[in-house]
Amino acid sequence: MKKVLLLGMIMLLMLNHLCPGQTQVFPPDSKPASTNVQNAQYPRITSDMRVIFRFRAPDAQKVQIDLTKKFDMVKNAEGFWEVTTDPIVEGFHYYSVIVDGYTAVDPSSQTFYGMSRMASGIEIPEKDVDYYLAKNVPHGQIRQMRYYSEITKAWRRAFVYTPAGYDVNTKERYPVLYLWHGGGEDETGWPNQGKVDFILDNLIAEGKAKPMLVVMDKGVAVNPDAAPAARPAAAPPAGQAAAPRQPGMMMQNTTLEDVVIKEIIPMIDKEFRTIPDRDHRAMTGLSMGGFQSFQITLNNLDKFAYIGGFSGAGQMQQGVEFSKLYNGVWADADAFNKKVKLMYLSTGTAEPERMYQTVNNFKKELDKAGIKHVYYESPGTAHEWLTWRRSLQQFAGLIFK
Amino acid sequence: MKKVLLLGMIMLLMLNHLCPGQTQVFPPDSKPASTNVQNAQYPRITSDMRVIFRFRAPDAQKVQIDLTKKFDMVKNAEGFWEVTTDPIVEGFHYYSVIVDGYTAVDPSSQTFYGMSRMASGIEIPEKDVDYYLAKNVPHGQIRQMRYYSEITKAWRRAFVYTPAGYDVNTKERYPVLYLWHGGGEDETGWPNQGKVDFILDNLIAEGKAKPMLVVMDKGVAVNPDAAPAARPAAAPPAGQAAAPRQPGMMMQNTTLEDVVIKEIIPMIDKEFRTIPDRDHRAMTGLSMGGFQSFQITLNNLDKFAYIGGFSGAGQMQQGVEFSKLYNGVWADADAFNKKVKLMYLSTGTAEPERMYQTVNNFKKELDKAGIKHVYYESPGTAHEWLTWRRSLQQFAGLIFK
Repeated sequence: MKKVLLLGMIMLLMLNHLCPGQTQVFPPDSKPASTNVQNAQYPRITSDMRVIFRFRAPDAQKVQIDLTKKFDMVKNAEGFWEVTTDPIVEGFHYYSVIVDGYTAVDPSSQTFYGMSRMASGIEIPEKDVDYYLAKNVPHGQIRQMRYYSEITKAWRRAFVYTPAGYDVNTKERYPVLYLWHGGGEDETGWPNQGKVDFILDNLIAEGKAKPMLVVMDKGVAVNPDAAPAARPAAAPPAGQAAAPRQPGMMMQNTTLEDVVIKEIIPMIDKEFRTIPDRDHRAMTGLSMGGFQSFQITLNNLDKFAYIGGFSGAGQMQQGVEFSKLYNGVWADADAFNKKVKLMYLSTGTAEPERMYQTVNNFKKELDKAGIKHVYYESPGTAHEWLTWRRSLQQFAGLIFK
Repeated sequence: MKKVLLLGMIMLLMLNHLCPGQTQVFPPDSKPASTNVQNAQYPRITSDMRVIFRFRAPDAQKVQIDLTKKFDMVKNAEGFWEVTTDPIVEGFHYYSVIVDGYTAVDPSSQTFYGMSRMASGIEIPEKDVDYYLAKNVPHGQIRQMRYYSEITKAWRRAFVYTPAGYDVNTKERYPVLYLWHGGGEDETGWPNQGKVDFILDNLIAEGKAKPMLVVMDKGVAVNPDAAPAARPAAAPPAGQAAAPRQPGMMMQNTTLEDVVIKEIIPMIDKEFRTIPDRDHRAMTGLSMGGFQSFQITLNNLDKFAYIGGFSGAGQMQQGVEFSKLYNGVWADADAFNKKVKLMYLSTGTAEPERMYQTVNNFKKELDKAGIKHVYYESPGTAHEWLTWRRSLQQFAGLIFK
């Protein structure tokens, strides 16, 4: 097998990827981020969780890294822009490179749909925690499904996690968790940023969660018959002007509910071996997706027995009694507590104050109304994916039991 | 269902995505590219296939769009940088935004792994062609599988297309096509840039291809026992210095062959309902992936009956007779022609001359050796994904018949 080959053009192409020799010394006590693309040496993470960025921008005057906090880069003697950040909180963070005022995506890191646009992301490793990492356990699959929605007159995409053994245990039927992303994100959020497959693989392997399907679809559905002015619009990507303003979030919500109840659930129950009843169906989501989960489940309690919101609250309305909301679903606490097997709410202790308070106020209303629920505060994390990975790990361990 | 709600913080978050009203007039006779992220109005494509780019970069001195050819942008009176390109050839193209010398990924377009880094991509629509578009036909799934490779001591990922009905027709077994990406790309190439699912869905629905599985894995495998100096390395992303040079492409190839033969094929035959014999196994790939396909199949003719290379040739070696290559597989043309049910080769007429010639020279050697093959030239396309989508459509229609 060890042949000496004279390579044709194709092989030359491959060799083009082997760059001319250049010995480079990397900063000690640092290594490339796990979110880097193949072979990218920067960004690097130090042992005290600072991030070192370094790249060329020969003619730029001002270069910054935007990691919510902005860090100014400095041009070194070799012409590379460099910066070492403060220590960054563990978990996954979106970031941008700002070059002379242009908000750019970094070619060196994996990209993610977030902030209503493509964005760079970096994973800061968490000490002694491996529940969302690839481990030597049986692995499920994440399946991409394309379907046409008659309600929205548009093609949609769903991702469906199937647990290990799904294709082998062909007599077995499974419960289903419907799981929403947040505002400015899409159906790729949980598979990519959320690491849903590793979290479920690990939980199931340890016997801490039942084998289940997880359906991740897009939390946006536009009614094609609504007047254009009544359609919702997300923000345009950074640096672009907005399209004409389009109010009408309520329309979006009811259309999404229609798509879920009339299209997605029937499709999943048809295409997969589900247990198609309320006792084996859960829904939760993060931030905007939490609000949507409460909206959809509380309007359809015949279809869901497990309900959650991660960094996302349900309705609260000034001047309207809490017990009157959601068609009065909270009015009879005993009935609700008997019917709903889990009501789950979470937030991060480092979330922006108003976000933290909104979830906390909702929790207090539930307390006052006598609605049983599980409430979790993720220590030290903000309105970010680590809060939501932790919440999912908990939530998935509490349902279908 | 039509309630008036006072929205909590979560809802405010959603509303943040509705930007303040600003009426914007878009250039007439143009529309947003299909590759744009949700709601991005730019880049736009005109009816004569020019692309209009427009965004803010307040402090930049020089901004260019790199679509292989570079287009200088101009700052308009409102402070937006703008450019309208020449007409662009139909199909999918990688592009970059260059701001004061920094090669950036555009936050407004979907991103793709190509050119050994994350890159922006734009789809220029092709007139009267819909074989790679979503149509009202039964749809297959693309499944993401994670697995640990004992040979490379590393986690790997495979994408597997399963045709419509795979989960229903549980007695049916399927042939398998192994399909490689090109240099500087990875296993996401065919699912994203290549539109493999739509191409197969449409072919199968029209009865032009047999229902089959398509396995897309990464064409890079590093032997962990090789001395570091002997390991191959891809180019670092633009703007980064290279890691120390690491020759050893041959090691990569034999390691990849080992991974395919000893790990991937057995895993696919175990996890899926395949027909696990050579008459129901094909392999092809693009560019570097074509070279790899010839290498792996011609060394393992007991395992593959259908062989292809898109814009990629097999071995040719100065001073060595063609018939001596690949352990002499070409020496007995009759035996080869009887054993191999399809030998397929393609290229684009607009490819760079040396690439075109390499494939063409390989074709001439096959002719001289009396090796039967199908040869296709994609009119007007370069070393780009449209050449490879067309080639896949042909190849998939010729195998397993």
